[in-house]
Amino acid sequence: MNIIIFGAAGFIGTNLVLQLAQDKNLNITLYDRNLMLFKNIKNFGLENLQYVCGEFRIDTNFDELVRDQDIIFNLVSTTVPTTSNQCIPDELAANIVVMAKLLEACVKNKVKKVIFPSSGGTVYGKEKEMPLKEDTTTYPITAYGLQKITIEKLLYLYRYIYGLDYRVIRLANPYGPYQNPNGVLGAVTTFIYKALIGQEITVYGDGSVVRDFIYIDDAVRGILNITNQEHQQRTFNLGCGYGISIRKVIETIQEILKIRLNINYIEGRKVDVPENYLDISLYENTFGKLDPIPLSIGIEKTVYFMRKVYHTKY
Amino acid sequence: MNIIIFGAAGFIGTNLVLQLAQDKNLNITLYDRNLMLFKNIKNFGLENLQYVCGEFRIDTNFDELVRDQDIIFNLVSTTVPTTSNQCIPDELAANIVVMAKLLEACVKNKVKKVIFPSSGGTVYGKEKEMPLKEDTTTYPITAYGLQKITIEKLLYLYRYIYGLDYRVIRLANPYGPYQNPNGVLGAVTTFIYKALIGQEITVYGDGSVVRDFIYIDDAVRGILNITNQEHQQRTFNLGCGYGISIRKVIETIQEILKIRLNINYIEGRKVDVPENYLDISLYENTFGKLDPIPLSIGIEKTVYFMRKVYHTKY
Repeated sequence: MNIIIFGAAGFIGTNLVLQLAQDKNLNITLYDRNLMLFKNIKNFGLENLQYVCGEFRIDTNFDELVRDQDIIFNLVSTTVPTTSNQCIPDELAANIVVMAKLLEACVKNKVKKVIFPSSGGTVYGKEKEMPLKEDTTTYPITAYGLQKITIEKLLYLYRYIYGLDYRVIRLANPYGPYQNPNGVLGAVTTFIYKALIGQEITVYGDGSVVRDFIYIDDAVRGILNITNQEHQQRTFNLGCGYGISIRKVIETIQEILKIRLNINYIEGRKVDVPENYLDISLYENTFGKLDPIPLSIGIEKTVYFMRKVYHTKY
Repeated sequence: MNIIIFGAAGFIGTNLVLQLAQDKNLNITLYDRNLMLFKNIKNFGLENLQYVCGEFRIDTNFDELVRDQDIIFNLVSTTVPTTSNQCIPDELAANIVVMAKLLEACVKNKVKKVIFPSSGGTVYGKEKEMPLKEDTTTYPITAYGLQKITIEKLLYLYRYIYGLDYRVIRLANPYGPYQNPNGVLGAVTTFIYKALIGQEITVYGDGSVVRDFIYIDDAVRGILNITNQEHQQRTFNLGCGYGISIRKVIETIQEILKIRLNINYIEGRKVDVPENYLDISLYENTFGKLDPIPLSIGIEKTVYFMRKVYHTKY
């Protein structure tokens, strides 16, 4: 079976590829902007991987890229939630319209299935009842969330018109190995890294913001279950299923590392909803218990990885 | 007060302008592709109207067009539901991305309110419980419906970020004077016209398809109530609030004209949902009873208009 992964070199992509590549029957093409970005994956010397570099743009030759592919993963986003409101028209064109071009190519080339990790953290918006169910109304407060929810509906439309199968995974906040520790995304990973190198941690607001954090291995396992199994439902929340405050994350890191973190609390951001965690009962009723590892174990695993890979101070 | 109406020369635009222009305090700019399109409105010799022609495109100078405007109506759609699936990427770019550019200009020029007639007939999609409530999940089966629902969410986002006020009217199927009688939209208007000129009427399916038909004067009255009043809700269904089958439309026309129509039943279309009518209780609880005129009266009014304007055979 042939699989192509757009945006394969990122955090989710890297972890997904390392898992998928265990199956030697899979022939996996990794697509990203720059061959340099694949250095983490290349270290593993896996034989069933091919690397292709190029842009994800309106003029990308998707026809050529998806030819003879059975499954497509699209993990590309041109921005992150906190920056996506800076130029909304561009954000929408670069993601929604380009995705539509990719889907046109998938139809033409008889691709079997398109897998799209959407954003459980941003598609729903504010002032909703927690935990969030899949049929909650969606009014995102970022252009990032808006492009994700529109692409979800676009996938529904292409299936309706052309029979192109798809899966949407409304993923919560994954953390763990290979997430950019200096990034603007991923509080858990960033906090652990800052703690390990002895740097100050910036917290937006008073630490009461609540999120649904899921360790990346659990997320990948969930994505693959959703990808591989046939079911009438095509859109699933995927997270740990309960809320964890930023304050709790900090406390847990402190307990594990047995050090006191240096926190700089600054003003909260309008793009952050106060509370967000997912109802994962649709997933669990369909695929069985997810049993995500607790935050403390996930943090320990991430600490272990970072000490080994980044040779951190603590 | 200054108002600009994009897509002012169309069916809804023409009727809306004729109503709005009664208020001599309003200074109304009508924008559409071609000055020729304004001939119906120009016949009325109204003094508080200005006519501007131009495209509605990514490179349109929206800054100049919305400068000093208080209220914007956007009635533009580049396609109709039945043709919108022909080139989905273009449909999305031409409507969603261009609307985002328009909204950027509205923010920059401090426009007070944006009014957007969305589509109660297409945003909800299939297999829903009737009548449709505003909080029903939205999975359109046409790119037309998809661009409308995305623009609704875009308006929510611009208000959230910039405080730009807006109203969304999820309009059912309006019919009546100035609707293109040879169009691909508007079964009631088209059927009446074909009946009056003695032409065969084409019906997709067996006539069991159910829609929510609203006479254009009732629709305009509803739009203006929603536009002018302040309320916490910003998105309203607007229709007659009950379902009418295509068969019932044909019977009613036959009864009124006392002639037997010549119907050609052909295969149903995938873009037509079997049933669609709107719950208008949010509108009525907010603004009072709509009291839309019955279909038979609306047909009589349309017949009267067509006989006068088109000098039809019957």
